Amino acid sequence: MDRRSFLKTSAFGGAAAASTALAAPAYAQGKRTLTMVTTWGRGLAGVHDSAQYCADMITAASDGNLTVEVKAAGELVGAFEVFDAVSAGQADMYHGVDYYFMGQHPALSFFSQVPFGMTFQEYNNWYYHGGGMALQDQLYEIFGLKSFSAGNTGPQSGGWFNKEINSPDDFQGLKFRMPGQGGQVLGKLGASVQNLPGSEVYQALSSGAIDGTEWIGPWADEKAGFQEITKIYYTAGFHEPGPVLSLTTNRDVYDSLTPAQQQIIQQVATASNLWTMSLFMANNSAALARLQAGGVKVMEFPDSVWDAFGAAAKEVVDAPLDDPLYKECYDSYFASIGPSARWGALSSGTYTAQRNRVMGL
Amino acid sequence: MDRRSFLKTSAFGGAAAASTALAAPAYAQGKRTLTMVTTWGRGLAGVHDSAQYCADMITAASDGNLTVEVKAAGELVGAFEVFDAVSAGQADMYHGVDYYFMGQHPALSFFSQVPFGMTFQEYNNWYYHGGGMALQDQLYEIFGLKSFSAGNTGPQSGGWFNKEINSPDDFQGLKFRMPGQGGQVLGKLGASVQNLPGSEVYQALSSGAIDGTEWIGPWADEKAGFQEITKIYYTAGFHEPGPVLSLTTNRDVYDSLTPAQQQIIQQVATASNLWTMSLFMANNSAALARLQAGGVKVMEFPDSVWDAFGAAAKEVVDAPLDDPLYKECYDSYFASIGPSARWGALSSGTYTAQRNRVMGL
Repeated sequence: MDRRSFLKTSAFGGAAAASTALAAPAYAQGKRTLTMVTTWGRGLAGVHDSAQYCADMITAASDGNLTVEVKAAGELVGAFEVFDAVSAGQADMYHGVDYYFMGQHPALSFFSQVPFGMTFQEYNNWYYHGGGMALQDQLYEIFGLKSFSAGNTGPQSGGWFNKEINSPDDFQGLKFRMPGQGGQVLGKLGASVQNLPGSEVYQALSSGAIDGTEWIGPWADEKAGFQEITKIYYTAGFHEPGPVLSLTTNRDVYDSLTPAQQQIIQQVATASNLWTMSLFMANNSAALARLQAGGVKVMEFPDSVWDAFGAAAKEVVDAPLDDPLYKECYDSYFASIGPSARWGALSSGTYTAQRNRVMGL
Repeated sequence: MDRRSFLKTSAFGGAAAASTALAAPAYAQGKRTLTMVTTWGRGLAGVHDSAQYCADMITAASDGNLTVEVKAAGELVGAFEVFDAVSAGQADMYHGVDYYFMGQHPALSFFSQVPFGMTFQEYNNWYYHGGGMALQDQLYEIFGLKSFSAGNTGPQSGGWFNKEINSPDDFQGLKFRMPGQGGQVLGKLGASVQNLPGSEVYQALSSGAIDGTEWIGPWADEKAGFQEITKIYYTAGFHEPGPVLSLTTNRDVYDSLTPAQQQIIQQVATASNLWTMSLFMANNSAALARLQAGGVKVMEFPDSVWDAFGAAAKEVVDAPLDDPLYKECYDSYFASIGPSARWGALSSGTYTAQRNRVMGL
C-alpha cells in the first residue's frame, strides 16, 4: 500500500494534511540551518542534553553545512506540538519521546515504550537487527516523517507517591502523572491519570493537582526537585523499562539532504542512543544515595502489585490489534523479546549475579 | 608528564620508536584512502562485521573524502601485528580487541576487558561519563595512537570443553585458549593457556593442540564450527563480560584530519559500539537453541569454580598496580563499577526478574 496515499484518507493524517498551509523553512544554498524542536524544557537533565548532543554532533560532523539549532519546549512550539509541527514542515526535526503522540497512531508505542516491554538492549537488538527499523520507516512515513532512535533513559522508576503502595487497590482514585500505555494501565487500576510534559510536573505536584508522578530515574528526578514535595520513591517500574528518545525529521527535508548528510544524521542518532543511555546510568546510583540521605524512603512494589500491572498491561497492549500496522509491529516486537530475554538471563544475568556475589558488589 | 618523551625511554615504546623506518601512506589531496587492518580473519561473524561497519559508515558519512579499506588479518599484517603496524604508520587504523597487546602496556586491559569487570553498559557509563575516555587518550598517546571504543560482543561464554568442569581442579593441565588477563587467571588454576587469534582456533582445537577454547558466544561460536569438535559448552564466563572492540588510528593521521572528519570517526565508532553489541545479542539465543538441538550440552560453572575464578582474578588484576598509569585507570574503573552495578540491580535487574516472572518469558 502507498502510505502517502493512505495519508489523505486516514484519521491519523490530520497534521500532515495541514502541511500546505505552513511555509517550509528557508535556507541558503550549501549551508543550511535546521531547526530542532523538542518535548523538553530547556535544561531538563539528560533529555535536553540528548537533544543538544544530537544538534551539536550533526553540526560538527557536517562541518557546519547542517547547523542544527535547538528550540526547547515552548520556545517555538509546545512540548506536545512538535510531532505536528515537524510533520507540517513548520520545524525541520524534533527530539522527543513518541508515546506523547499515540493519539496519532497507537503503534508509536513500539518506538517509544511498551509496558512490560523491552529494555534498552533488547530494543536495540530488535531495532537494528530484528526488523524494527524498517517498521519504523513504514509508520512514520504516514506522517511525512523519518525517525531514528536517538537516546534512552534506561529503566524508569516507579515514581513519587504520597503514600505507600501495598496493593493494587492503592491506585484507586490516585491522581497520577504517567504518559503512554503505562498511564492507560494505571487507569485500569482506577487511577486518575494525567499526561503532562516534564516541565509542568513539578508545579502540578506541588499544587496538589496530582498526588504523585513518575518522571525518569533518581538523577533526573532529583534535578527536577520532586524530593522537595514527596518522600516516598519507588524504584523499578513496569511502565517504561527502556523508553526511546527519537530524533525525527520532516521527510521532505530529509530527502533533500545529500546521502552523506543523511548518513551523518543516522550515525549521530545511533551514537546518541548509547551516549544518552550511559549518561543516565552513570548518574543514577549517586543520586539515589543523595535522595536517601535527604530523607526519601526508597521502596519496591510488592509482587501482588506487579501481577496487577501485568494483567492490565496485557489488556492495554492487545487493545489496538485490529490496526494492521500495529499488529505487524506487535508480532515483530514480541517475536524478538523472548529470545533476547532468555539470552540476557543466561549471560548478563548469570554473570552479574555471580560477580556481585563473588566480589561483594 | 610528556608521554611522547616517555616513549623514547619506555620499555613499551618499541613499536612506535620503529616508525621512522616505515613509509607513511600516500594520499591524494582532498580525497584520502585510509587502510584499516584488523585482528579478525575475513568473515569472522560479528567482529569482522563491526570492522566493516566502521569502514563503510566513515566512507559514507564523509562522502568518500575518507575512503576506508578493510584488510583482514593476514592480508597486510597478521592479527597480532596490527597494534605495532598502526603505531608505526604502516597502516592508518586498526579494528581489534586490545588485550591482545597487553605486552605493550598492562592498562590496555581496562579498554578491552577485565576479568570480573564491567558489562557493556557499565563500561560505557565509565567510558563516556566517568573519565574512561580521557584515560584512554593518555594511554594510547604513549604509542602514537588515538583510540575509540567501537564495538562489544556482550558477555562471553565460558567456552568449549572436552569434559565437565565440576571443581577448580579440573583446569589443572588443561590446554585452553583464552587471551588477556582471563588467560592469566586460568593459568593460576593450573591450565596451560594459549593466546591464538580467532582464525586459528578451529584448527588448534581440531588437531588437539588445545583441549578447549572460549571464543565469543553462541552465534559467533556456531559460525566458527566448534560444535563439530566438542559437545560441552559453558555459557556465562568470568573472563570477558563486555569486551571492547577498538577502532584505533595512528595519532599523526588522526591529527591531520579536519575537525569534521575527526568527529565523523568518533560518531561512527560510538554508533558501531551499540550496533555491534546488538548484532551479537540479537543472534545468540537462536544459535544456542540450534547448538542444543545439534547435541551440544549447555552448562553453567558451579559456585565453587566461580569462587576460584574470583580469587585468582583479584591477584591478576592487582598485580600491575606498581605502574602509575595502570593504577590511575584501576582507581577510576573500580570507583565506577560499584555504583553502576548497584543501580543495574535495582533497575534492570528487578524489572527483568518481575517481567519474566509475570509475563512468563
